[in-house]
Amino acid sequence: MKLYGYFRSSAAYRVRIALNLKGLNADLLSIHLVKNGGEQHSAAYRQLNSSQLVPTWVEDENECSFILTQSLSILEYLEEKFTDIPLLPLDLQQRALIRAFSQSIACDIHPLNNLRVLQFLKHQYEISDEQKMQWYRHWVDIGFSSLEKQLQHSNGQFCFGELPTFADCCLIPQVYNALRFNIDLSAYPKIQSIYQHCNTLIAFQNAAPEQQADAV
Amino acid sequence: MKLYGYFRSSAAYRVRIALNLKGLNADLLSIHLVKNGGEQHSAAYRQLNSSQLVPTWVEDENECSFILTQSLSILEYLEEKFTDIPLLPLDLQQRALIRAFSQSIACDIHPLNNLRVLQFLKHQYEISDEQKMQWYRHWVDIGFSSLEKQLQHSNGQFCFGELPTFADCCLIPQVYNALRFNIDLSAYPKIQSIYQHCNTLIAFQNAAPEQQADAV
Repeated sequence: MKLYGYFRSSAAYRVRIALNLKGLNADLLSIHLVKNGGEQHSAAYRQLNSSQLVPTWVEDENECSFILTQSLSILEYLEEKFTDIPLLPLDLQQRALIRAFSQSIACDIHPLNNLRVLQFLKHQYEISDEQKMQWYRHWVDIGFSSLEKQLQHSNGQFCFGELPTFADCCLIPQVYNALRFNIDLSAYPKIQSIYQHCNTLIAFQNAAPEQQADAV
Repeated sequence: MKLYGYFRSSAAYRVRIALNLKGLNADLLSIHLVKNGGEQHSAAYRQLNSSQLVPTWVEDENECSFILTQSLSILEYLEEKFTDIPLLPLDLQQRALIRAFSQSIACDIHPLNNLRVLQFLKHQYEISDEQKMQWYRHWVDIGFSSLEKQLQHSNGQFCFGELPTFADCCLIPQVYNALRFNIDLSAYPKIQSIYQHCNTLIAFQNAAPEQQADAV
Protein backbone atom coordinates (compact mmCIF):
# COMPACT_ATOMS: atom_id res chain seq x y z
CA MET A 1 0.00 0.00 0.00
CA LYS A 2 1.42 3.34 -1.07
CA LEU A 3 0.35 6.90 -0.42
CA TYR A 4 1.62 9.57 -2.77
CA GLY A 5 1.55 12.90 -0.99
CA TYR A 6 3.42 16.03 -0.08
CA PHE A 7 4.42 17.03 3.42
CA ARG A 8 2.49 20.32 3.38
CA SER A 9 -0.61 19.12 1.53
CA SER A 10 -3.61 19.26 3.87
CA ALA A 11 -5.33 16.55 1.88
CA ALA A 12 -2.40 14.12 2.18
CA TYR A 13 -2.07 15.02 5.89
CA ARG A 14 -5.72 13.92 6.44
CA VAL A 15 -4.93 10.46 5.09
CA ARG A 16 -1.70 10.16 7.10
CA ILE A 17 -3.67 10.85 10.30
CA ALA A 18 -6.29 8.25 9.38
CA LEU A 19 -3.62 5.62 8.63
CA ASN A 20 -1.95 6.27 11.98
CA LEU A 21 -5.22 6.21 13.91
CA LYS A 22 -6.13 2.91 12.28
CA GLY A 23 -2.65 1.49 12.87
CA LEU A 24 -2.04 0.89 9.15
CA ASN A 25 1.28 1.02 7.37
CA ALA A 26 1.81 2.38 3.89
CA ASP A 27 4.84 3.58 1.98
CA LEU A 28 4.73 7.36 1.89
CA LEU A 29 6.01 8.67 -1.44
CA SER A 30 6.63 12.31 -2.11
CA ILE A 31 5.29 14.31 -5.04
CA HIS A 32 6.90 17.72 -4.71
CA LEU A 33 4.19 20.27 -5.54
CA VAL A 34 6.60 23.13 -6.22
CA LYS A 35 9.94 21.76 -7.47
CA ASN A 36 10.41 21.63 -11.26
CA GLY A 37 7.09 23.36 -11.82
CA GLY A 38 5.33 20.73 -9.72
CA GLU A 39 5.90 16.98 -9.93
CA GLN A 40 2.12 16.46 -9.84
CA HIS A 41 2.08 17.56 -13.48
CA SER A 42 4.58 14.92 -14.64
CA ALA A 43 3.40 12.37 -17.21
CA ALA A 44 4.13 9.51 -14.80
CA TYR A 45 2.07 10.97 -11.96
CA ARG A 46 -0.79 11.96 -14.25
CA GLN A 47 -1.18 8.26 -15.03
CA LEU A 48 -2.01 7.79 -11.35
CA ASN A 49 -3.94 10.99 -10.76
CA SER A 50 -5.56 12.69 -13.75
CA SER A 51 -6.50 15.66 -11.55
CA GLN A 52 -2.78 16.31 -10.92
CA LEU A 53 -3.38 16.63 -7.20
CA VAL A 54 -2.26 14.77 -4.10
CA PRO A 55 -2.91 12.40 -2.44
CA THR A 56 -3.14 9.18 -4.44
CA TRP A 57 -3.56 5.78 -2.86
CA VAL A 58 -2.14 2.74 -4.68
CA GLU A 59 -2.46 -0.97 -3.87
CA ASP A 60 -0.50 -3.49 -5.90
CA GLU A 61 -1.83 -7.00 -5.75
CA ASN A 62 -1.36 -9.88 -8.19
CA GLU A 63 0.07 -7.60 -10.86
CA CYS A 64 -3.11 -5.55 -10.65
CA SER A 65 -3.10 -2.01 -9.31
CA PHE A 66 -5.94 -0.27 -7.52
CA ILE A 67 -5.49 3.47 -7.78
CA LEU A 68 -7.64 5.85 -5.77
CA THR A 69 -7.67 9.64 -5.60
CA GLN A 70 -9.45 12.18 -3.37
CA SER A 71 -8.60 12.21 0.32
CA LEU A 72 -12.17 11.74 1.57
CA SER A 73 -12.80 8.79 -0.72
CA ILE A 74 -9.53 7.26 0.53
CA LEU A 75 -10.77 7.75 4.11
CA GLU A 76 -14.11 6.10 3.29
CA TYR A 77 -12.30 3.22 1.56
CA LEU A 78 -9.97 2.63 4.51
CA GLU A 79 -12.99 2.79 6.81
CA GLU A 80 -14.86 0.12 4.86
CA LYS A 81 -11.83 -2.13 4.33
CA PHE A 82 -10.11 -1.90 7.72
CA THR A 83 -12.88 -2.04 10.28
CA ASP A 84 -10.92 -2.80 13.48
CA ILE A 85 -10.50 0.82 14.52
CA PRO A 86 -13.43 2.81 13.11
CA LEU A 87 -13.28 6.54 12.40
CA LEU A 88 -17.04 6.84 12.06
CA PRO A 89 -19.60 5.82 14.70
CA LEU A 90 -22.51 3.47 13.95
CA ASP A 91 -25.27 6.03 14.45
CA LEU A 92 -26.49 7.21 11.05
CA GLN A 93 -27.12 10.81 12.06
CA GLN A 94 -23.74 11.15 13.75
CA ARG A 95 -21.99 9.66 10.72
CA ALA A 96 -23.80 12.17 8.53
CA LEU A 97 -22.87 15.16 10.72
CA ILE A 98 -19.22 14.07 10.78
CA ARG A 99 -19.17 13.76 6.99
CA ALA A 100 -20.82 17.17 6.64
CA PHE A 101 -18.20 18.73 8.92
CA SER A 102 -15.40 17.07 6.95
CA GLN A 103 -16.89 18.29 3.68
CA SER A 104 -17.20 21.82 5.06
CA ILE A 105 -13.41 21.71 5.07
CA ALA A 106 -12.77 19.62 1.96
CA CYS A 107 -15.40 21.31 -0.25
CA ASP A 108 -15.73 24.85 1.14
CA ILE A 109 -12.34 25.91 2.53
CA HIS A 110 -9.44 23.89 1.18
CA PRO A 111 -10.34 23.97 -2.57
CA LEU A 112 -10.29 27.77 -2.51
CA ASN A 113 -7.04 28.12 -0.62
CA ASN A 114 -4.79 25.42 -1.99
CA LEU A 115 -1.61 25.98 -3.93
CA ARG A 116 -2.99 25.76 -7.46
CA VAL A 117 -5.65 28.39 -6.78
CA LEU A 118 -3.28 30.82 -5.08
CA GLN A 119 -0.83 30.38 -7.96
CA PHE A 120 -3.54 30.95 -10.56
CA LEU A 121 -4.81 34.10 -8.81
CA LYS A 122 -1.30 35.49 -8.63
CA HIS A 123 -0.35 34.78 -12.23
CA GLN A 124 -3.67 35.55 -13.85
CA TYR A 125 -4.76 38.67 -12.04
CA GLU A 126 -1.35 39.79 -10.80
CA ILE A 127 -2.73 40.31 -7.32
CA SER A 128 -0.41 41.45 -4.55
CA ASP A 129 0.67 39.28 -1.64
CA GLU A 130 -1.66 41.31 0.58
CA GLN A 131 -4.58 40.59 -1.77
CA LYS A 132 -3.65 36.91 -1.74
CA MET A 133 -3.78 36.93 2.06
CA GLN A 134 -7.12 38.72 1.95
CA TRP A 135 -8.49 35.96 -0.30
CA TYR A 136 -7.11 33.28 2.01
CA ARG A 137 -8.47 34.93 5.16
CA HIS A 138 -11.89 35.53 3.63
CA TRP A 139 -12.59 31.84 2.98
CA VAL A 140 -11.01 30.68 6.22
CA ASP A 141 -13.08 33.16 8.26
CA ILE A 142 -16.36 32.08 6.66
CA GLY A 143 -15.39 28.42 6.89
CA PHE A 144 -14.06 28.42 10.44
CA SER A 145 -17.09 30.36 11.69
CA SER A 146 -19.27 27.56 10.37
CA LEU A 147 -17.01 24.84 11.80
CA GLU A 148 -17.05 26.50 15.23
CA LYS A 149 -20.89 26.51 15.13
CA GLN A 150 -20.94 22.86 14.10
CA LEU A 151 -18.75 22.13 17.14
CA GLN A 152 -20.97 23.93 19.63
CA HIS A 153 -21.83 20.67 21.42
CA SER A 154 -18.29 19.34 21.38
CA ASN A 155 -16.62 18.80 24.73
CA GLY A 156 -13.37 20.05 23.30
CA GLN A 157 -11.46 16.75 23.13
CA PHE A 158 -12.41 15.65 19.64
CA CYS A 159 -14.82 17.16 17.14
CA PHE A 160 -17.53 14.56 17.79
CA GLY A 161 -17.43 12.78 21.12
CA GLU A 162 -14.73 10.81 22.87
CA LEU A 163 -13.05 9.30 19.82
CA PRO A 164 -11.32 10.72 16.77
CA THR A 165 -13.23 10.63 13.50
CA PHE A 166 -12.95 11.82 9.89
CA ALA A 167 -13.74 15.27 11.27
CA ASP A 168 -10.51 15.43 13.27
CA CYS A 169 -8.54 14.02 10.31
CA CYS A 170 -9.77 17.00 8.30
CA LEU A 171 -9.74 19.73 10.96
CA ILE A 172 -6.16 19.40 12.20
CA PRO A 173 -4.50 19.86 8.78
CA GLN A 174 -6.75 22.82 8.00
CA VAL A 175 -5.83 24.52 11.29
CA TYR A 176 -2.15 23.75 10.69
CA ASN A 177 -2.47 25.42 7.31
CA ALA A 178 -4.27 28.46 8.76
CA LEU A 179 -1.55 28.93 11.38
CA ARG A 180 1.09 28.83 8.65
CA PHE A 181 -0.76 31.75 7.07
CA ASN A 182 -0.85 33.56 10.46
CA ILE A 183 -4.62 33.41 10.83
CA ASP A 184 -5.86 34.62 14.23
CA LEU A 185 -7.85 31.77 15.77
CA SER A 186 -9.03 33.55 18.92
CA ALA A 187 -12.62 33.64 17.66
CA TYR A 188 -12.64 29.84 17.45
CA PRO A 189 -12.08 28.41 20.94
CA LYS A 190 -13.53 24.95 20.19
CA ILE A 191 -11.36 24.57 17.12
CA GLN A 192 -8.28 25.65 19.08
CA SER A 193 -9.00 23.31 21.95
CA ILE A 194 -9.50 20.29 19.66
CA TYR A 195 -6.36 21.17 17.73
CA GLN A 196 -4.35 21.26 20.92
CA HIS A 197 -5.77 18.02 22.24
CA CYS A 198 -5.27 16.07 19.00
CA ASN A 199 -1.68 17.21 18.79
CA THR A 200 -0.93 15.56 22.14
CA LEU A 201 -1.58 12.20 20.43
CA ILE A 202 1.15 10.30 18.64
CA ALA A 203 -1.06 9.48 15.62
CA PHE A 204 -1.50 13.17 14.89
CA GLN A 205 2.08 14.10 15.80
CA ASN A 206 3.60 11.55 13.42
CA ALA A 207 1.37 12.73 10.58
CA ALA A 208 2.47 16.36 10.89
CA PRO A 209 4.22 17.95 7.91
CA GLU A 210 7.52 18.55 9.71
CA GLN A 211 7.77 14.83 10.53
CA GLN A 212 7.68 13.77 6.87
CA ALA A 213 10.77 12.71 4.94
CA ASP A 214 10.17 15.36 2.27
CA ALA A 215 9.78 18.22 4.77
CA VAL A 216 11.97 21.19 3.98
CA MET B 1 -38.42 15.50 5.21
CA LYS B 2 -37.49 18.84 3.71
CA LEU B 3 -34.80 19.90 1.29
CA TYR B 4 -33.86 23.56 1.22
CA GLY B 5 -32.34 24.36 -2.15
CA TYR B 6 -32.31 26.65 -5.14
CA PHE B 7 -33.30 25.65 -8.64
CA ARG B 8 -29.93 26.49 -10.20
CA SER B 9 -27.69 25.21 -7.38
CA SER B 10 -25.69 22.22 -8.64
CA ALA B 11 -25.38 20.92 -5.10
CA ALA B 12 -29.16 20.96 -4.49
CA TYR B 13 -29.71 19.43 -7.94
CA ARG B 14 -27.50 16.44 -6.92
CA VAL B 15 -29.75 15.70 -3.97
CA ARG B 16 -32.94 16.10 -6.02
CA ILE B 17 -31.66 13.48 -8.47
CA ALA B 18 -30.79 11.09 -5.63
CA LEU B 19 -34.23 11.51 -4.04
CA ASN B 20 -35.93 10.79 -7.37
CA LEU B 21 -33.73 7.77 -8.12
CA LYS B 22 -34.49 6.37 -4.67
CA GLY B 23 -38.19 7.12 -5.00
CA LEU B 24 -38.22 9.36 -1.93
CA ASN B 25 -40.46 12.34 -1.33
CA ALA B 26 -39.39 15.51 0.40
CA ASP B 27 -40.76 19.04 0.50
CA LEU B 28 -38.57 21.20 -1.69
CA LEU B 29 -38.16 24.66 -0.19
CA SER B 30 -36.52 27.52 -2.00
CA ILE B 31 -33.70 29.68 -0.68
CA HIS B 32 -33.18 32.34 -3.33
CA LEU B 33 -29.43 32.81 -3.66
CA VAL B 34 -29.64 36.20 -5.38
CA LYS B 35 -32.82 38.01 -4.31
CA ASN B 36 -32.45 40.49 -1.43
CA GLY B 37 -28.71 39.97 -1.33
CA GLY B 38 -29.18 36.23 -0.97
CA GLU B 39 -31.69 34.52 1.33
CA GLN B 40 -28.94 32.06 2.37
CA HIS B 41 -27.52 34.87 4.51
CA SER B 42 -30.76 35.45 6.47
CA ALA B 43 -30.67 34.89 10.22
CA ALA B 44 -33.35 32.19 9.96
CA TYR B 45 -31.50 30.17 7.33
CA ARG B 46 -28.16 30.54 9.10
CA GLN B 47 -29.70 28.67 12.01
CA LEU B 48 -30.09 25.72 9.65
CA ASN B 49 -26.88 26.13 7.68
CA SER B 50 -24.01 28.01 9.28
CA SER B 51 -22.08 27.88 6.00
CA GLN B 52 -24.85 29.93 4.34
CA LEU B 53 -24.99 27.54 1.42
CA VAL B 54 -27.57 25.21 -0.07
CA PRO B 55 -28.71 22.48 0.22
CA THR B 56 -29.88 21.72 3.74
CA TRP B 57 -31.76 18.56 4.68
CA VAL B 58 -34.20 18.72 7.60
CA GLU B 59 -36.15 15.92 9.29
CA ASP B 60 -38.69 16.78 11.95
CA GLU B 61 -39.59 13.95 14.24
CA ASN B 62 -41.05 13.98 17.76
CA GLU B 63 -40.37 17.71 18.14
CA CYS B 64 -36.74 17.02 17.40
CA SER B 65 -35.06 18.25 14.23
CA PHE B 66 -32.21 16.60 12.41
CA ILE B 67 -30.44 19.16 10.26
CA LEU B 68 -27.82 18.12 7.73
CA THR B 69 -25.73 20.17 5.31
CA GLN B 70 -23.36 19.31 2.44
CA SER B 71 -24.82 17.56 -0.59
CA LEU B 72 -22.46 14.56 -0.51
CA SER B 73 -23.10 13.91 3.16
CA ILE B 74 -26.85 14.08 2.44
CA LEU B 75 -26.33 11.51 -0.35
CA GLU B 76 -24.39 9.21 2.00
CA TYR B 77 -27.07 9.60 4.68
CA LEU B 78 -29.89 8.78 2.27
CA GLU B 79 -27.86 5.79 1.04
CA GLU B 80 -27.42 4.41 4.56
CA LYS B 81 -30.99 5.13 5.68
CA PHE B 82 -32.97 4.16 2.57
CA THR B 83 -31.35 1.00 1.27
CA ASP B 84 -34.03 -0.29 -1.14
CA ILE B 85 -32.58 1.40 -4.20
CA PRO B 86 -28.83 1.78 -3.71
CA LEU B 87 -26.75 4.42 -5.46
CA LEU B 88 -23.46 2.73 -4.57
CA PRO B 89 -22.53 -0.88 -5.44
CA LEU B 90 -21.33 -3.38 -2.81
CA ASP B 91 -17.79 -3.74 -4.18
CA LEU B 92 -15.43 -1.69 -2.00
CA GLN B 93 -13.15 -0.58 -4.81
CA GLN B 94 -16.06 0.46 -7.04
CA ARG B 95 -17.64 2.41 -4.18
CA ALA B 96 -14.34 4.17 -3.65
CA LEU B 97 -13.90 5.09 -7.31
CA ILE B 98 -17.45 6.43 -7.48
CA ARG B 99 -16.86 8.56 -4.40
CA ALA B 100 -13.56 9.83 -5.85
CA PHE B 101 -15.30 10.79 -9.09
CA SER B 102 -18.05 12.57 -7.16
CA GLN B 103 -15.49 14.43 -5.08
CA SER B 104 -13.58 15.46 -8.20
CA ILE B 105 -16.70 17.48 -8.95
CA ALA B 106 -17.70 18.50 -5.43
CA CYS B 107 -14.18 19.36 -4.21
CA ASP B 108 -12.25 20.38 -7.35
CA ILE B 109 -14.69 22.02 -9.78
CA HIS B 110 -17.85 23.27 -8.12
CA PRO B 111 -16.29 25.08 -5.11
CA LEU B 112 -14.25 27.26 -7.45
CA ASN B 113 -17.07 28.13 -9.80
CA ASN B 114 -20.07 28.63 -7.60
CA LEU B 115 -21.92 31.89 -7.12
CA ARG B 116 -20.18 33.14 -3.98
CA VAL B 117 -16.73 32.77 -5.54
CA LEU B 118 -17.64 34.44 -8.82
CA GLN B 119 -19.26 37.28 -6.85
CA PHE B 120 -16.20 37.69 -4.64
CA LEU B 121 -13.81 37.74 -7.60
CA LYS B 122 -15.91 40.37 -9.32
CA HIS B 123 -16.31 42.66 -6.35
CA GLN B 124 -12.86 42.23 -4.85
CA TYR B 125 -10.64 42.33 -7.89
CA GLU B 126 -13.01 44.12 -10.25
CA ILE B 127 -12.36 41.54 -12.94
CA SER B 128 -14.18 41.80 -16.25
CA ASP B 129 -16.89 39.40 -17.40
CA GLU B 130 -14.35 37.93 -19.84
CA GLN B 131 -11.90 37.31 -16.99
CA LYS B 132 -14.69 35.70 -14.98
CA MET B 133 -15.38 33.35 -17.89
CA GLN B 134 -11.68 32.59 -18.17
CA TRP B 135 -11.62 31.61 -14.49
CA TYR B 136 -14.72 29.44 -14.93
CA ARG B 137 -13.38 27.74 -18.06
CA HIS B 138 -9.96 27.10 -16.52
CA TRP B 139 -11.31 25.00 -13.65
CA VAL B 140 -13.92 23.25 -15.77
CA ASP B 141 -11.31 22.29 -18.38
CA ILE B 142 -8.92 20.83 -15.81
CA GLY B 143 -11.76 19.13 -13.98
CA PHE B 144 -13.61 17.73 -16.99
CA SER B 145 -10.35 16.39 -18.49
CA SER B 146 -9.85 14.39 -15.32
CA LEU B 147 -13.48 13.22 -15.25
CA GLU B 148 -13.27 12.06 -18.87
CA LYS B 149 -10.16 10.01 -17.99
CA GLN B 150 -11.92 8.51 -14.98
CA LEU B 151 -14.72 7.48 -17.35
CA GLN B 152 -12.47 5.76 -19.88
CA HIS B 153 -13.96 2.34 -19.09
CA SER B 154 -17.54 3.57 -18.99
CA ASN B 155 -19.89 2.15 -21.61
CA GLY B 156 -21.51 5.52 -21.95
CA GLN B 157 -24.84 4.80 -20.24
CA PHE B 158 -23.94 5.75 -16.69
CA CYS B 159 -20.63 6.80 -15.17
CA PHE B 160 -20.03 3.42 -13.54
CA GLY B 161 -21.81 0.43 -15.03
CA GLU B 162 -25.44 -0.25 -15.75
CA LEU B 163 -26.98 1.63 -12.85
CA PRO B 164 -26.94 5.25 -11.75
CA THR B 165 -24.75 6.12 -8.76
CA PHE B 166 -23.55 9.15 -6.78
CA ALA B 167 -21.29 9.86 -9.76
CA ASP B 168 -24.24 10.52 -12.08
CA CYS B 169 -25.99 12.58 -9.37
CA CYS B 170 -22.91 14.85 -9.35
CA LEU B 171 -22.00 14.82 -13.05
CA ILE B 172 -25.32 15.85 -14.58
CA PRO B 173 -25.67 19.10 -12.56
CA GLN B 174 -22.06 20.03 -13.29
CA VAL B 175 -22.57 19.52 -17.03
CA TYR B 176 -25.83 21.48 -16.89
CA ASN B 177 -23.93 24.31 -15.24
CA ALA B 178 -21.11 24.18 -17.80
CA LEU B 179 -23.60 24.36 -20.67
CA ARG B 180 -25.19 27.41 -19.08
CA PHE B 181 -21.75 29.02 -19.25
CA ASN B 182 -21.41 27.97 -22.92
CA ILE B 183 -18.52 25.57 -22.31
CA ASP B 184 -17.58 23.54 -25.39
CA LEU B 185 -17.88 19.87 -24.44
CA SER B 186 -16.61 18.34 -27.69
CA ALA B 187 -13.39 17.15 -26.01
CA TYR B 188 -15.45 15.09 -23.53
CA PRO B 189 -17.43 12.47 -25.47
CA LYS B 190 -18.01 10.13 -22.50
CA ILE B 191 -19.32 12.99 -20.37
CA GLN B 192 -21.61 14.12 -23.19
CA SER B 193 -22.94 10.64 -23.82
CA ILE B 194 -23.72 10.01 -20.14
CA TYR B 195 -25.35 13.41 -19.84
CA GLN B 196 -27.61 12.66 -22.79
CA HIS B 197 -28.53 9.20 -21.53
CA CYS B 198 -29.32 10.32 -17.98
CA ASN B 199 -31.54 13.09 -19.26
CA THR B 200 -33.78 10.54 -21.00
CA LEU B 201 -34.74 9.29 -17.51
CA ILE B 202 -37.61 10.78 -15.57
CA ALA B 203 -35.64 10.91 -12.27
CA PHE B 204 -33.11 13.23 -13.86
CA GLN B 205 -35.66 15.19 -15.87
CA ASN B 206 -37.78 16.00 -12.83
CA ALA B 207 -34.73 17.17 -10.90
CA ALA B 208 -33.68 19.67 -13.56
CA PRO B 209 -33.57 23.36 -12.60
CA GLU B 210 -36.28 24.44 -15.04
CA GLN B 211 -38.72 21.94 -13.49
CA GLN B 212 -38.46 23.51 -10.02
CA ALA B 213 -41.12 25.74 -8.53
CA ASP B 214 -38.60 28.56 -7.96
CA ALA B 215 -37.26 28.50 -11.53
CA VAL B 216 -37.23 31.90 -13.17
